[in-house]
Amino acid sequence: MNSVEEIGRRAKVAAAEVANLPADIRSQILVDMATALEENWAAIAAANKKDLAVATGLSVPMRNRLTLNQKVIHDIAISLSSVAALDDPLAGPYDHWRHSTGFEIIKKTVPLGVVAMVFEARPNVTIDAAALTFKSGNAVILRGGKEAINSNIVLADTLRAVLSNHELNPDIIQLITDTTHESVNTLLNMRQYIDVLIPRGSGQFIDFVVKNATVPVIETGAGNTHIYVDASAKQDEAIRVINNAKTQKPAVCNAAEKLLIHEAIAEEFLPRVVGDLLTSGVAVRGDQQAINIDKRISAATVEDWYTEYNDLIIAVKIVKDTNEAIEWINEHTTHHSETIISEDTDNVKDFMNKIDAAVVYQNVSTRFTDGFEFGFGAEIGISTQKLHARGPMGLNALTTIKYEVFGDGQIRA
Amino acid sequence: MNSVEEIGRRAKVAAAEVANLPADIRSQILVDMATALEENWAAIAAANKKDLAVATGLSVPMRNRLTLNQKVIHDIAISLSSVAALDDPLAGPYDHWRHSTGFEIIKKTVPLGVVAMVFEARPNVTIDAAALTFKSGNAVILRGGKEAINSNIVLADTLRAVLSNHELNPDIIQLITDTTHESVNTLLNMRQYIDVLIPRGSGQFIDFVVKNATVPVIETGAGNTHIYVDASAKQDEAIRVINNAKTQKPAVCNAAEKLLIHEAIAEEFLPRVVGDLLTSGVAVRGDQQAINIDKRISAATVEDWYTEYNDLIIAVKIVKDTNEAIEWINEHTTHHSETIISEDTDNVKDFMNKIDAAVVYQNVSTRFTDGFEFGFGAEIGISTQKLHARGPMGLNALTTIKYEVFGDGQIRA
Repeated sequence: MNSVEEIGRRAKVAAAEVANLPADIRSQILVDMATALEENWAAIAAANKKDLAVATGLSVPMRNRLTLNQKVIHDIAISLSSVAALDDPLAGPYDHWRHSTGFEIIKKTVPLGVVAMVFEARPNVTIDAAALTFKSGNAVILRGGKEAINSNIVLADTLRAVLSNHELNPDIIQLITDTTHESVNTLLNMRQYIDVLIPRGSGQFIDFVVKNATVPVIETGAGNTHIYVDASAKQDEAIRVINNAKTQKPAVCNAAEKLLIHEAIAEEFLPRVVGDLLTSGVAVRGDQQAINIDKRISAATVEDWYTEYNDLIIAVKIVKDTNEAIEWINEHTTHHSETIISEDTDNVKDFMNKIDAAVVYQNVSTRFTDGFEFGFGAEIGISTQKLHARGPMGLNALTTIKYEVFGDGQIRA
Repeated sequence: MNSVEEIGRRAKVAAAEVANLPADIRSQILVDMATALEENWAAIAAANKKDLAVATGLSVPMRNRLTLNQKVIHDIAISLSSVAALDDPLAGPYDHWRHSTGFEIIKKTVPLGVVAMVFEARPNVTIDAAALTFKSGNAVILRGGKEAINSNIVLADTLRAVLSNHELNPDIIQLITDTTHESVNTLLNMRQYIDVLIPRGSGQFIDFVVKNATVPVIETGAGNTHIYVDASAKQDEAIRVINNAKTQKPAVCNAAEKLLIHEAIAEEFLPRVVGDLLTSGVAVRGDQQAINIDKRISAATVEDWYTEYNDLIIAVKIVKDTNEAIEWINEHTTHHSETIISEDTDNVKDFMNKIDAAVVYQNVSTRFTDGFEFGFGAEIGISTQKLHARGPMGLNALTTIKYEVFGDGQIRA
């Protein structure tokens, strides 16, 4: 048995232990973990310096995401304390009913069991993932990127020490320190130990996981997010929403990537919105009809319409009507977040009913697709699949159900 | 594009159409489908005769399952009508709340979209699957076994004609008539068209699907089901429950396969239960400790403990206590249904909390793990995985959620 399998086996044993911890103890341990992080900040920052020293090839934003100093560690500890304060996702009330023969069925909420998280260079995800899985009564196996390995080791050790201090099995939280591809491949196929695997990272990486995993996966996907501006739109409002959705944080999955405009308003609206976007530093690409109206637009290729830029780029297309917008979006969507800007009730209803995405907006920036903004108090990721969880995932996404049946000798006739 | 892919593409188009059909129209169409089956019984039975003529190698029970005559078709039509009468799984009330900036979030229940069902020789599953997916607003792709192909073609055509009569897209219900392995392989990888695939069949077949599918799968697994008889058990009750769970319908997944007995009562209880099982024609295998007590027991191999017999065979093991029973079961369970026979509240609580199965029983036959017995009015299958659905699946398992957000220009700060 290699070490990743051994980690799996241990996680399964630990899962049974954490599943039955009372909610107040789970919360207290999370508070103690927050304290331990603050107390241990110097050791964490020192390990992080080692990671930064090696990671010379990273872009400035990636380097910033990797950096842990006293301030960042303090913020992570605060976020951990806020998880402690969330409602227990395992608490009832549970549905329950009686069979005609007299036995009682209780539909309980229980933890998933062993959750595996595979993620890229951000060490804060290590704490986030450990906190949310622990809060919901799960054991977790963490596999972070090699760029953050020294930081992750100290972070995981800090949390595991708190578990040991509470006389709990430290294997409730485990980190895979083997950062080879081989360790991910092993993880993807440990059906006997892993109840769900949640990948976080690039679209390409998530695609690899989905195609190669035999363990159940929750796909947290890319966002090729569209905004459709209907003929009835309030144009000033549309420009404000588009600018926010595109520029407020362009690198994230809920940023807008594509703009569809109803042809009836294109002559008037397109130059206004292009001017606004150019002023904000956004490169605007588009189809021929858009270019004919505004020469500041460069030509979009077929590939553009399928691309999540994660950058200050947008592609614009002119459409005949709401139906064409719906068809276009359903052909190109990554099922994340889609928006209509419209004052026409029928068109909005059509758009809401027919668009195949986790979140569908009227007159609101797509940047709100987020567990905190949705009021869940946490976010494990944003699911772009339909099974189990869809859209921003809070603690409930880390639970399942179990039927407990109590009788006195009932048999089936 | 080969024909299975073409079926996928058409299903995606049809899914948008059926998703927005009002509940009363969906129900009316199901009633009309029941009528059409009754009216068309002679053509269905004739096609079925062709299947039976070819299927000379089948066992008697398999042959009975394949047979469609006027009586069986009438029963299928009755069952279809009962699906029509079920509550609409898409009806609200939906959760909804307001963001601090004023927009409203509605968490709607919506169909999954395109459901693919792959199943073995029982043609009644064709109607069942079509009825349940249609009732819940989904398009369905059916891939039945080759033994029932002639029956399935006439059944599917009968349902599709009703859709056409209502001026609906008949591709809401499609049958793959290509019964080669190739058609299943194509289906398992059509991520662009299929939202969920539900396999029904042998453990080996489901294992193949889980390992080879890239589309999301709901595993409807095997049942290596245990009954643990605690020292505190009412022994007469235990014998009655064990006999029912083992013999009432031995070929199904919720039948008992293994028996664990607390050593404190083994000398007294084991000969009684073995006698009762032998009288019912059950072959009893066991571990050495059991054989030492009752020589009528033959030796179980290591493989026995992992085997779902689906036959009149049971294997018995003597355990030290409830803890050993729990550990043994969690090592060998297929996560379907597990039972404790006990009057000891602490032991029952431990068993309920620690056993990792969809349904855990106290003093009740495992044969009750069934969508109808659980009061769901239907059963798509019994999920042995933890994501999305667990245990008997009713219509709700064929739905997902979608967030609809209504605002007036909100942007993220």
